[in-house]
Amino acid sequence: MTARHAYLDWNATAPLRAEARDAMIAACDIVGNPSSVHAAGRAARALVERSRAEIAEALGASGADIVFTSGATEAAALALHDRDIHAGAVEHDAVAAWVTADLAVDGNGQVTVDDPASSAVQRANSETGILQDLPEGLFFCDAVQAIGKLPFAFAWSGAEMAAVSAHKFGGPKGIGALVLRQGRDVAATLRGGGQEQGRRSGTENVIGIAGFAAALKAAVAELESGAWEAVAERRDRMEAHLLDAASDLVIPGLDAPRLPNTSCLAVPGWKGETQVMQMDLAGYAISAGSACSSGKVRESRVLAAMGFDKLISGGAIRVSMGTATTDAEVDGFASTWIEHYTRFRKRSA
Amino acid sequence: MTARHAYLDWNATAPLRAEARDAMIAACDIVGNPSSVHAAGRAARALVERSRAEIAEALGASGADIVFTSGATEAAALALHDRDIHAGAVEHDAVAAWVTADLAVDGNGQVTVDDPASSAVQRANSETGILQDLPEGLFFCDAVQAIGKLPFAFAWSGAEMAAVSAHKFGGPKGIGALVLRQGRDVAATLRGGGQEQGRRSGTENVIGIAGFAAALKAAVAELESGAWEAVAERRDRMEAHLLDAASDLVIPGLDAPRLPNTSCLAVPGWKGETQVMQMDLAGYAISAGSACSSGKVRESRVLAAMGFDKLISGGAIRVSMGTATTDAEVDGFASTWIEHYTRFRKRSA
Repeated sequence: MTARHAYLDWNATAPLRAEARDAMIAACDIVGNPSSVHAAGRAARALVERSRAEIAEALGASGADIVFTSGATEAAALALHDRDIHAGAVEHDAVAAWVTADLAVDGNGQVTVDDPASSAVQRANSETGILQDLPEGLFFCDAVQAIGKLPFAFAWSGAEMAAVSAHKFGGPKGIGALVLRQGRDVAATLRGGGQEQGRRSGTENVIGIAGFAAALKAAVAELESGAWEAVAERRDRMEAHLLDAASDLVIPGLDAPRLPNTSCLAVPGWKGETQVMQMDLAGYAISAGSACSSGKVRESRVLAAMGFDKLISGGAIRVSMGTATTDAEVDGFASTWIEHYTRFRKRSA
Repeated sequence: MTARHAYLDWNATAPLRAEARDAMIAACDIVGNPSSVHAAGRAARALVERSRAEIAEALGASGADIVFTSGATEAAALALHDRDIHAGAVEHDAVAAWVTADLAVDGNGQVTVDDPASSAVQRANSETGILQDLPEGLFFCDAVQAIGKLPFAFAWSGAEMAAVSAHKFGGPKGIGALVLRQGRDVAATLRGGGQEQGRRSGTENVIGIAGFAAALKAAVAELESGAWEAVAERRDRMEAHLLDAASDLVIPGLDAPRLPNTSCLAVPGWKGETQVMQMDLAGYAISAGSACSSGKVRESRVLAAMGFDKLISGGAIRVSMGTATTDAEVDGFASTWIEHYTRFRKRSA
């Protein structure tokens, strides 16, 4: 039973939530520029500031500053540019671009932090789902994949700054935030009008901000309802099924604490790229490695950092489910994958 | 006859066009990340690239590169950071932040460019509406206020790069572009996933991009229909009426080529801030100077550069109309303004 176009790539981006869509449509009627002092401007300003307060509350970040950015890539750049920050080689490209990747990473993907004040650590890895404990006083945390899938309270996270992206939990693409502990500051890279307390100039993405806040509130409510525990059960069941069928299947991070929705699956010598195409033709959207650059599919830097050789790091796929993912989609994926796996084994026998 | 909440601040931001709203609502159903290689990702990529092509066509920029940014502030930063560019002191803050403001500006707001290859010139000033001719080989043009209000063809503009902002012509806030003549390049300030040919990393604002393209197509069609000629007539009629009633009214740029919709009005000694509040209470949204920073209303740097003294540069307001502005709104504004002007004159007599 093959479901057509089953979307199993929620870590790349999640479908827009109905709550976000409704909030964005409502925000279409807000005419003013939030920087204008007249009534139309004040209405736009009120929406931005109400959204900011709701987001701070939902992130457990009361008292912290929320700086709206065009996404987590910009939030990471704002926090990390012109700094001397260290990290493990498992960080997302948007963090890796700004740090020295010299912190040790073990076979379970765990990073050893020597000096939290000069380090960046992700809360959850996008490819493997592996979680990191954040040391107190950590300079920067990429919280992108954790928000909405795991309880997250910035105030208790240990981090001084955190990057958030709305589209990973059902908000629109193109909006995110840098969360700053009180007393922390950043040097603006966008300058001009002085918006966001001078930290990020440019007219605010009012519609996107409204969608961000609505999606986050809905995501947190859904998380509290236990919806992701059901996802974890479905994911675990699928992994057991696949391990049963494919004796040489490797699941990096299987024994580490992980996100509830993510499976990294590697068969030595079976290219991830090939699998993604085969699954796409069969109607399943999955990814190979991190899906963040146009069309590029390459060896996983993350798996290499964990000590896996090229046969594994070049052969990994990522299946990432969401709360709307059904048993039929997962079962359909598993049986299709096993079919192709069996053919691959026969060809290479 | 006072219209309630007449919006006469189109240069700060224009109301969202119905075409943009419809395109954005349709884009809400696009699930994938444009960087994903599967069918859902390809559908998102197709929307982004179709929009890019439509925008290039509407901007007369076939063959040029369109780099999507979070707005014109980011586009200006991308073009101008780490460069040694010169400009007149009439540029927008988002340009002024990166350039040396040492080019001469005359009383009509015209900038003298010595070396186009190292200069930035705006096509239209946001406060006065004054237009500049762009010299061939100009390094950078802030085209924000011109797009949609005047015919603009990037290929014939003389500029090597131009910044564009969607919300000024009825698109959403938070999306814009840097247009680059072929062969030109910029150093990325957002790094990571390698989107936009490596020039601007970060997951694309898919919904915003769809709104941008739809708004621009509608704006260009409206411009070609002659809608802004009617705006210019309305604006000119209002200015004649106000000049008649207020003998000491100064209209900077009155004799210069200007945008069809913009009136900069200054009465010596009558603070712009006061006028904006009085007009807001009476139901008219106008601005004092550039409305680009939160709540700040200050002396106009633009008028000072044109040689006006503080009595004028601190007393200017901006009335900027749109194609939806009615005679009733303009007449209502004019009679309300004249009423307040008469009281101001009596008080200061």
